[in-house]
Amino acid sequence: MDGSGADGLFAGVFARGAAAAEVDGRAWLQGMLDFEAALARASERAGAGLPDGAAEAIAAECRAERFDAARIGREAAASGNPAVPMVRALTERLPEPAAAYVHLGATSQDAIDTAAMLVARRALGPILADLAGAAVACAGHAAAYRDSVAPGRTLLQQALPVTFGLKVAGWLCGLDEARRALAGVRERVPAVQLGGAVGTLASLGDDGLAVAADMAAQLGLAEPAMPWHTNRTRPATLACALGVTAGALAKVARDVTLLAQTEVAEAAEGGAGGGSSTMPHKRNPVAAVATLACTGRVPALVATMLAAMAHEHERAAGAWHSEWETLSELLRLVGSAAAWLRECVEELRPDPARMEANLAITDGLSMAESVTTRLVPALGRLGAHDVVEEACRRAVEEGRALRDVLRDTPAVTEQLDADEIDAALAPEHYLGVTGTLIDRALAAHAEV
Amino acid sequence: MDGSGADGLFAGVFARGAAAAEVDGRAWLQGMLDFEAALARASERAGAGLPDGAAEAIAAECRAERFDAARIGREAAASGNPAVPMVRALTERLPEPAAAYVHLGATSQDAIDTAAMLVARRALGPILADLAGAAVACAGHAAAYRDSVAPGRTLLQQALPVTFGLKVAGWLCGLDEARRALAGVRERVPAVQLGGAVGTLASLGDDGLAVAADMAAQLGLAEPAMPWHTNRTRPATLACALGVTAGALAKVARDVTLLAQTEVAEAAEGGAGGGSSTMPHKRNPVAAVATLACTGRVPALVATMLAAMAHEHERAAGAWHSEWETLSELLRLVGSAAAWLRECVEELRPDPARMEANLAITDGLSMAESVTTRLVPALGRLGAHDVVEEACRRAVEEGRALRDVLRDTPAVTEQLDADEIDAALAPEHYLGVTGTLIDRALAAHAEV
Amino acid sequence: MDGSGADGLFAGVFARGAAAAEVDGRAWLQGMLDFEAALARASERAGAGLPDGAAEAIAAECRAERFDAARIGREAAASGNPAVPMVRALTERLPEPAAAYVHLGATSQDAIDTAAMLVARRALGPILADLAGAAVACAGHAAAYRDSVAPGRTLLQQALPVTFGLKVAGWLCGLDEARRALAGVRERVPAVQLGGAVGTLASLGDDGLAVAADMAAQLGLAEPAMPWHTNRTRPATLACALGVTAGALAKVARDVTLLAQTEVAEAAEGGAGGGSSTMPHKRNPVAAVATLACTGRVPALVATMLAAMAHEHERAAGAWHSEWETLSELLRLVGSAAAWLRECVEELRPDPARMEANLAITDGLSMAESVTTRLVPALGRLGAHDVVEEACRRAVEEGRALRDVLRDTPAVTEQLDADEIDAALAPEHYLGVTGTLIDRALAAHAEV
Amino acid sequence: MDGSGADGLFAGVFARGAAAAEVDGRAWLQGMLDFEAALARASERAGAGLPDGAAEAIAAECRAERFDAARIGREAAASGNPAVPMVRALTERLPEPAAAYVHLGATSQDAIDTAAMLVARRALGPILADLAGAAVACAGHAAAYRDSVAPGRTLLQQALPVTFGLKVAGWLCGLDEARRALAGVRERVPAVQLGGAVGTLASLGDDGLAVAADMAAQLGLAEPAMPWHTNRTRPATLACALGVTAGALAKVARDVTLLAQTEVAEAAEGGAGGGSSTMPHKRNPVAAVATLACTGRVPALVATMLAAMAHEHERAAGAWHSEWETLSELLRLVGSAAAWLRECVEELRPDPARMEANLAITDGLSMAESVTTRLVPALGRLGAHDVVEEACRRAVEEGRALRDVLRDTPAVTEQLDADEIDAALAPEHYLGVTGTLIDRALAAHAEV
Repeated sequence: MDGSGADGLFAGVFARGAAAAEVDGRAWLQGMLDFEAALARASERAGAGLPDGAAEAIAAECRAERFDAARIGREAAASGNPAVPMVRALTERLPEPAAAYVHLGATSQDAIDTAAMLVARRALGPILADLAGAAVACAGHAAAYRDSVAPGRTLLQQALPVTFGLKVAGWLCGLDEARRALAGVRERVPAVQLGGAVGTLASLGDDGLAVAADMAAQLGLAEPAMPWHTNRTRPATLACALGVTAGALAKVARDVTLLAQTEVAEAAEGGAGGGSSTMPHKRNPVAAVATLACTGRVPALVATMLAAMAHEHERAAGAWHSEWETLSELLRLVGSAAAWLRECVEELRPDPARMEANLAITDGLSMAESVTTRLVPALGRLGAHDVVEEACRRAVEEGRALRDVLRDTPAVTEQLDADEIDAALAPEHYLGVTGTLIDRALAAHAEV
Repeated sequence: MDGSGADGLFAGVFARGAAAAEVDGRAWLQGMLDFEAALARASERAGAGLPDGAAEAIAAECRAERFDAARIGREAAASGNPAVPMVRALTERLPEPAAAYVHLGATSQDAIDTAAMLVARRALGPILADLAGAAVACAGHAAAYRDSVAPGRTLLQQALPVTFGLKVAGWLCGLDEARRALAGVRERVPAVQLGGAVGTLASLGDDGLAVAADMAAQLGLAEPAMPWHTNRTRPATLACALGVTAGALAKVARDVTLLAQTEVAEAAEGGAGGGSSTMPHKRNPVAAVATLACTGRVPALVATMLAAMAHEHERAAGAWHSEWETLSELLRLVGSAAAWLRECVEELRPDPARMEANLAITDGLSMAESVTTRLVPALGRLGAHDVVEEACRRAVEEGRALRDVLRDTPAVTEQLDADEIDAALAPEHYLGVTGTLIDRALAAHAEV
Repeated sequence: MDGSGADGLFAGVFARGAAAAEVDGRAWLQGMLDFEAALARASERAGAGLPDGAAEAIAAECRAERFDAARIGREAAASGNPAVPMVRALTERLPEPAAAYVHLGATSQDAIDTAAMLVARRALGPILADLAGAAVACAGHAAAYRDSVAPGRTLLQQALPVTFGLKVAGWLCGLDEARRALAGVRERVPAVQLGGAVGTLASLGDDGLAVAADMAAQLGLAEPAMPWHTNRTRPATLACALGVTAGALAKVARDVTLLAQTEVAEAAEGGAGGGSSTMPHKRNPVAAVATLACTGRVPALVATMLAAMAHEHERAAGAWHSEWETLSELLRLVGSAAAWLRECVEELRPDPARMEANLAITDGLSMAESVTTRLVPALGRLGAHDVVEEACRRAVEEGRALRDVLRDTPAVTEQLDADEIDAALAPEHYLGVTGTLIDRALAAHAEV
Repeated sequence: MDGSGADGLFAGVFARGAAAAEVDGRAWLQGMLDFEAALARASERAGAGLPDGAAEAIAAECRAERFDAARIGREAAASGNPAVPMVRALTERLPEPAAAYVHLGATSQDAIDTAAMLVARRALGPILADLAGAAVACAGHAAAYRDSVAPGRTLLQQALPVTFGLKVAGWLCGLDEARRALAGVRERVPAVQLGGAVGTLASLGDDGLAVAADMAAQLGLAEPAMPWHTNRTRPATLACALGVTAGALAKVARDVTLLAQTEVAEAAEGGAGGGSSTMPHKRNPVAAVATLACTGRVPALVATMLAAMAHEHERAAGAWHSEWETLSELLRLVGSAAAWLRECVEELRPDPARMEANLAITDGLSMAESVTTRLVPALGRLGAHDVVEEACRRAVEEGRALRDVLRDTPAVTEQLDADEIDAALAPEHYLGVTGTLIDRALAAHAEV
């Protein structure tokens, strides 16, 4: 039980997938220790005067499992950050002379900022994997249901037909755009931070930049032009990419909850969960709901990261600190959402028959535009529109199918025979460039 | 280590004070178990057919320490909430026939919503205590430094004089208004939730309302007019009161960080923390910084709670879930901020001599309005203004004290002698109703 | 066309109702002028030395329509706030000696903060009226459809039956709680602000508090214990009450969009809007959609107001300014949402027949719990549960109505005859305390 | 006066610079009309059956100044968006047959989404120009004050020395990173939207994609793989880039307000504004304050855009609408902040003498680490640390300069002579790689 909260109890919903383990206290502690190990080795190589073996002695001790994270957390209160007690604990574990060279030339913020970048980069691995899995599943559905006509809905009202494949291709584009951006951020943004107390690297003399470059190489992080201790574009950019990803995930999950409604029933989650022994007719879309539970918390956390960018002078009086758990939460929640959504779409069971049945609810009215289009060449745009509008009005008033009314309408039958009326009312004949759009989405997906 | 995150490592900053222990997984679990115990007892009393002794058998088992919160958390994934595995675990610990009467007539949301209210009410206890402590300390400073003149600053520029007591009285008013509102919310808002699956209490027949009333009495919660499962004004109102409290705390902490600046040095934190062995001149205002670290994260979390209010139909598909950890975070962060700020103001060491010295920086210019005011009766408002403005201009240009320039200015000396000029330039003579305002703030404080 | 934005073009959606006119530039300007008029009169009465007639001369000129708000807005850039050019413009319109007594003893923030309170109080009038209208309409529906059975839905899946009246009673409780809180805030929170440059009222000598009290009385505002220029609980509390109100409105609108879905069709908006000549089958729930458009923007604006509370020293360097338009937006958006939602519910056309039809979709499965409840006395809780679960499983597998399966199941027929089975499956017999809850909501409504 | 708000009155602060004119109602209207003109031309070229001259007749009429934006705004209420009355107004202005071909195949969202992209791209022009101007000014200061020593401050306490050039180089990096990202987003993200009612382009038959491609080329927008009506990564990505930019601007402005404090006085804004006739000693940093006023409102608006991404099905019921004004506000506020900050840094007047004077406040204590570093070779790290710590302690206790204590301390004087002690205490000798870092920042700047 940690000092915080209810997370453990709610981990089933909010800590799904493998990213959660990369953002916990141990992971942050390991990130700080990785910083210290890299610093010691780089300092030795830069000729900063470490005794023989000191760097390796330090590095060998930099393993999170040897430390008491909770104690370090408690002791963080005295200085306001956990790097101070971490350095103390590491130093205490080492013999002289190595002990004297721990954290050489660095400041607390160096260790914590670098740890944040390592935590983020590591957590993004499983997040991107789950996003890729979700995208692959969407691509499969988009191809499989390329021609399955379904109601398109605007403002939650049936409008014109689409295919289920097109709907999923839209999901796919969103997911692919988000994960491509997130992968780019992962490559480009995480950078080592080494600046010393005020960003001058003063206590390292002329060696500072060489040490920083060496550390960047060791840790697989970018080497920034300058220490970025008070230039927070990096954590903010990470947060934003996670925010956009959450939005793309939420779009899919929202649609699944709507499709899974008892009255719509065009798709159901096929996983083991969600059944209810007391309500046997329910198939709760648990994965979609959990995705929305996670993603609903993300936008505000992005705002916190952005609001925290105005760091005062050479170290912020609070704004910096407020990034730590917020970034962790963002990674955990987006990671959990990605894991849930992947399960959701991998197990999704679309019901094309039900889609067709739902399309029939309006008795042809949703195809009115299709009929109009066919009458334009003969009647002109306004003429065609007026004829069809009147027919629709009669269909609604008289409670008849539009087809029957059209067959009764001379202005129509003079232009279209019964088969042509049927064709005009067939959803599969009024899909525009649906197929091509799906192909384009799949082609774009193949390139991600 | 729980599934979530870095909280343990950062607990020193973000889980200060006693509220944190009231919002962790154990606390939520105990809240749900308290719900189950109260439900069993109330059902028995309502004549819902429980066998003799079943209610007490259930209640006796409702102790969080007997359960594995982490396991319940993991199992929550299947159904999307921890109430389902909690009920299962409780049932498994009980013999028949009592086991069959666990959770009778209730739904998961009933248990979790009621637990949320219990968690909130319990956590608000130490939060209000720390707020009261902070207010008491402020009242002490306001009285002690009632007449200690200090620079008043607008847009971070010295403007006219205030007293340090007045500044602190302003803090006091904010804290008192916030905690009065928060205490009112604590009294009024937390309510029992019992509605069954869709809020009709159907499986309890006619007994539902009696059971709910009995539970409210047992748990010390309000009895709502209706189940509030999809009417989220209660959690939203709690969140808002916490948000306003965070803002009142942040105001004080921001001022302390500004006062503690090396170049201002009008107050320092007196606690043990904050000293630096490598930078002996620094006295980091750790408590104020930690307060800002906590409060900076609060506004966005309030937004999450407000955005989650649009619950769909009889149970939300995600919005409800997103409240759980968010409410916990709000309580934890505001609790931590209140504990930090209390320490900050209790240990605050104002330096009245430095305040006076800082007032002297502008060589009298900050008292120009005071001189003008004394000249108005003779010269009229515009005339007085013009004379003083010209004197100020000369003082700046010639690098002289305003006093010296005024003594050289016939239009002034014709009205005011040297003593009167000195008096006009004395900050303590241009404080308006400062003393009365402090008295009013203290009187209001005495009534909270 | 003002300097800002696209508001005019989008006013149809986001500036519905009468509140919008109370928050525009003219309204703010009038608020500042009302401050100046009240200040002049109060100063005269306090004996602050105004020449005879000066106060009335000033007050007579304080009419927004005589000023060029756009020019004042542009000139605000020089000082960073519009009070400076407003005072200048007012002064220019006045002859001496009255001109010299404009804004006597006040600072820009006094005028703007007081104007903000006047704007808020005035805008809350129509907002509360529209909320009341919406609540009255809900009360009407709750009574009219008290017994109209409808599907209750959890996670967007049909669960157990409710009545449409119960659903609307839930809306009503949320609206009533929000508007009662908002009305209380309107009574209690808006206060006059008068402090002078740093809150000491120095240039008014001993008269400051008398002037402030007189102004409060003139303007119908509360008189605070102290100037609240850097204690922002008042604007923050206003924002929060608006935020909770938005959430209560959004809940109703969300439900209406879901009920109005083509496949659900349990309610439609009856207003003139929303029809589509090209899609005659659509009845877009425009009012509900517009409500959601407005309310979706509110939570973040509340966060901005809360984040702006940490004002530095005696006047904030930016945070204060960021409140102005944000508070206006909050009032405008919540006002627009209240106007839209009132129209939505006033014109709402529920379709009880469709509700019953939708309840039948699950062929009795949604009533399983009701059957179980009837079997408990004879079979015990676990026995009853197992029998019904097996019957449900068979019904799903064999594609039969639950009724038919139950009639085939000896364990059932030994306890219940055909009529009793029918009764158990009748939604109207499994509504628990629905009627009583509606009555309680209506009774609470009558007291608001 | 438009329907919205107080914007005009506050335009001086919040609508600075040229971006504001690109996001107002007229600009949005022109964006929609540009869409219609491009659609007509592209349709004609694609052979969609437009009569000769119809496309040009339509295009010729597509000028915003011919339309009544306020009326269109009002009429938008009926359908919930301004595209419907815009199309009607455009159609009414045209003779037949051209009138019949307005908006052919398009839906309201196509026009509004495309307009949003045009508005964003156009507004980003002046925003990027002001950001570039600010960066150029920073580069100038970074070079000019490369060697001007100044206090580095952590948690608002003096720590070790920096140079003013280094501080500004940090600002420069943040601005350059933000504007590079924003410029990239401007190139890549704005895309044409054309999908018809549900994204199938059904009424354009096979011509849809050719029309969309032609429109993209005409409008200078990207051509997306699919219509993006419910894939909101584009507007969200725009919002995020603006959010990060706001944070980079806020960092600079925050530092300027702190540097400009009366007691710090290391820099002042040199513009005309900010002087006060009643407080002649004040030089309000109006531009920095206004920057913070604008940027403080941005994070929450980004959150609104991210929260709005979960569009339902083929058109969102509210979330889409909530983007319109929010995106406008983001562009307006970031544009205003960029214009203000550019003025702020272009006119900034640093005071190197004051920086040196402030460095002297701690009587050498802030240079303790420098002394330690020089003693390490002889005394070892721990030995050196202990000696200096003791000297610092004595300096504080005895109220002496550290220099004097060091000269009295044998453990020091045995290693360092008086000149070496002086050198160790000279800030300019303990700047680490400051110069190189500035050079790197300037080199990176030259490449943007």
